[in-house]
Amino acid sequence: MPVKHEKAALIVGAGDATGGAIAKRFAREGYATVMIRRHADALEELASAIRAAGGTAYPMGVDARDEDQMVALFAHIEEEIGPLEAVIFNIGANVHFSITETTARVFRKVWEMACFAGFLTGREAARHMLPRGRGTVIFTGATASVRGAPGFSAFASAKYGLRALAQSMARELGPKGIHVAHSIIDGAIDTAWIAENFPERYKLKEEDGILDPAAIADAYWALHSQPRSAWTHELDLRPWMEKF
Amino acid sequence: MPVKHEKAALIVGAGDATGGAIAKRFAREGYATVMIRRHADALEELASAIRAAGGTAYPMGVDARDEDQMVALFAHIEEEIGPLEAVIFNIGANVHFSITETTARVFRKVWEMACFAGFLTGREAARHMLPRGRGTVIFTGATASVRGAPGFSAFASAKYGLRALAQSMARELGPKGIHVAHSIIDGAIDTAWIAENFPERYKLKEEDGILDPAAIADAYWALHSQPRSAWTHELDLRPWMEKF
Amino acid sequence: MPVKHEKAALIVGAGDATGGAIAKRFAREGYATVMIRRHADALEELASAIRAAGGTAYPMGVDARDEDQMVALFAHIEEEIGPLEAVIFNIGANVHFSITETTARVFRKVWEMACFAGFLTGREAARHMLPRGRGTVIFTGATASVRGAPGFSAFASAKYGLRALAQSMARELGPKGIHVAHSIIDGAIDTAWIAENFPERYKLKEEDGILDPAAIADAYWALHSQPRSAWTHELDLRPWMEKF
Amino acid sequence: MPVKHEKAALIVGAGDATGGAIAKRFAREGYATVMIRRHADALEELASAIRAAGGTAYPMGVDARDEDQMVALFAHIEEEIGPLEAVIFNIGANVHFSITETTARVFRKVWEMACFAGFLTGREAARHMLPRGRGTVIFTGATASVRGAPGFSAFASAKYGLRALAQSMARELGPKGIHVAHSIIDGAIDTAWIAENFPERYKLKEEDGILDPAAIADAYWALHSQPRSAWTHELDLRPWMEKF
Repeated sequence: MPVKHEKAALIVGAGDATGGAIAKRFAREGYATVMIRRHADALEELASAIRAAGGTAYPMGVDARDEDQMVALFAHIEEEIGPLEAVIFNIGANVHFSITETTARVFRKVWEMACFAGFLTGREAARHMLPRGRGTVIFTGATASVRGAPGFSAFASAKYGLRALAQSMARELGPKGIHVAHSIIDGAIDTAWIAENFPERYKLKEEDGILDPAAIADAYWALHSQPRSAWTHELDLRPWMEKF
Repeated sequence: MPVKHEKAALIVGAGDATGGAIAKRFAREGYATVMIRRHADALEELASAIRAAGGTAYPMGVDARDEDQMVALFAHIEEEIGPLEAVIFNIGANVHFSITETTARVFRKVWEMACFAGFLTGREAARHMLPRGRGTVIFTGATASVRGAPGFSAFASAKYGLRALAQSMARELGPKGIHVAHSIIDGAIDTAWIAENFPERYKLKEEDGILDPAAIADAYWALHSQPRSAWTHELDLRPWMEKF
Repeated sequence: MPVKHEKAALIVGAGDATGGAIAKRFAREGYATVMIRRHADALEELASAIRAAGGTAYPMGVDARDEDQMVALFAHIEEEIGPLEAVIFNIGANVHFSITETTARVFRKVWEMACFAGFLTGREAARHMLPRGRGTVIFTGATASVRGAPGFSAFASAKYGLRALAQSMARELGPKGIHVAHSIIDGAIDTAWIAENFPERYKLKEEDGILDPAAIADAYWALHSQPRSAWTHELDLRPWMEKF
Repeated sequence: MPVKHEKAALIVGAGDATGGAIAKRFAREGYATVMIRRHADALEELASAIRAAGGTAYPMGVDARDEDQMVALFAHIEEEIGPLEAVIFNIGANVHFSITETTARVFRKVWEMACFAGFLTGREAARHMLPRGRGTVIFTGATASVRGAPGFSAFASAKYGLRALAQSMARELGPKGIHVAHSIIDGAIDTAWIAENFPERYKLKEEDGILDPAAIADAYWALHSQPRSAWTHELDLRPWMEKF
């Protein structure tokens, strides 16, 4: 079967907020948009919204930490959907434990989700983009990507690891035409989770005090749209009132 | 006399390349654009181009290192041209001397141009923007803003100083509604100076290997356009093939 | 059985160079020095040298990536040898592969050696030191701890991850009396491996152009000796002629 | 007149705390120690203490921002006292003003004290040390050297500028045998000023919660003593309980 679309975008870790907004943004620009998370059914609402707006959505249940699944996913997209022009890695794994309370299981799992899955994503993207000498790979970082803190040994360790991956890939793949970028999301994002667990903070939404996922998506789109004479590797994104 | 325009932009250090492209970009978006450099006559061509494209240009000869001149400039713009919504500081002062060959005069002059003038620009912008709780201030940095190097004691010192100013201002003024950003321009820019002095390097232009001023201007416009729920304080800009 | 010694030091990853020199240094200062690496027999020469110099050495074969072995090791030292006053994590795992040639197995293994084992080491050290409100934990970093590079996706990712761990632990445990430090070793170390594989570089030894393990050990001892009114969290170490 | 001493050390900015402690430390090690500050009489007590302990002290009134005075000072020391083996720049200029309240005079003065004087010091040290291919230059930094903050536009700008100078000099002069280092002092130091103005904070001294100048001096001495196979360019120093 020939590929159906001229260009495809993949969002790894597409939840109700950032990943979803990014998926909608690329779909709106005409990209066949593949969204993955562990359980595909959690993606149905997002896919419906994209389709209702005239976009093309491929929701899939894939465990991004599983090498075989990821290799197969990329092959499938490239063979049956369209060439990947943009790949966004957006899996978080924010946990908070004192160092002595951090189990080996937690430390490993956070790394597998926030860093190892990013490696599989980035490597497969590189494999398929390199022959074309073109493409964008964006990794979503956090405050913990550049600053360790009490209680964040596991999360910061994984996020630093992801940033090093992004930086190494950018320096290796940039001269080969692949744009690798890393964003530092510094602040609460407008999600159901923040609304429920931090209602006081969520109120800041009224004065734009938490990150609007659509604004993050716009920034990612802007990164993907940069001409290759002036690429950004790293930028931060935070609400105007956020301390940093 | 009442202000003539709804919104104004000021570009401090508007030469033939980056500053000029930024001026054109803001003029294209409908801003009354004030461009300053030491000698106004060097701005005539730029002003003519902006006007020919239907924009509004105010070229002025101002020494950005002179406090009185800068205070008067901002007052003049605010009183007679329009409220400053965007102020871009874009003066470079790249010199290269070994530490022992660096005269006190050079060290001081580079700082006055690349850092002190930035302080005057930023402070006056803050004074006029704060009552409105709105506005964007962008400082142009360089590789030397984040990395000292042999022969760059004076330049890196001034550029680090400018970055500290930008960072301090961002942390102070962000929560008051002013968006302060710092860009790190990492690579040669398409200028007459590079064309003349580094012809080999200039040839890279054919494959987008040097920075297109218009692309930098687009990035600055994108910074100014960010909604306040997701502001970027710092980003880098470099050609795809640039080592970093 | 009561503990035999007043104070113990543990070196995780004690090879022929850095780890060995650190072990000798702490042994010379009167610490019962426990050295581990995967195979204990590779530690015999080091242990003999320490004993010949009048020191106390406990060479042990332990896989630092194995949680059970590490938990048991710390318990054993604390119960039978002496209270751990200093714990040094010194396992490297330098590999060089382009991103597309980096297997999931390599990426994971490098992380397990250079980061996960560091986590187990740091956490167990914290558990035993916290009740005493005293102790030093030093993590050995590298250039790749602060800079990603082509071919170093796996190594830099793991080293960044280790640095984040060190930083998070320092911020969490410092106020509880535990001194956590991170060193950035930037340059070739005087090892048999460099001598064999990079003979040209090894020649620089004649003019102190590669790192002397004994000098690194002195720096680690200095870190451990700092009074708590002036602790260093991070320092770099490089030969005078090394570019950086 | 021939030089009187085998080796000399110069401390630029020798007050009652850090600079004084450093002067005492180098004097104790046998260095003819030159201490300067603007008014020599403020140095008498320090000089007496050094002499009473058997050391050699040369207190001098010099304005470190004045190029002619600094050039003359270095020439005088080298010709009449002894070859400078260690030069420490230790002038602070901590001020706190909102950006709009920062006068051009303050911004300039802070830079002249904290950065420009450091340049004059570093350059003159380089001039005299380079022919010998030997010597140590240490610059004292602060939290503001690596982090801008509200109210610290002037101070952070100057301190960043000093750090860039140190970094550029290190990269330029290291391969020529000169050890250039930068310390980041992160916390309150045990000074009369803190005792008077921050009595609550000063009480932390009882539990080592503020920096002991003698401990800082030990760290500087350790830097100067490092063999050239393992030099440190940058380290931080903070009390164990300090947040960072």
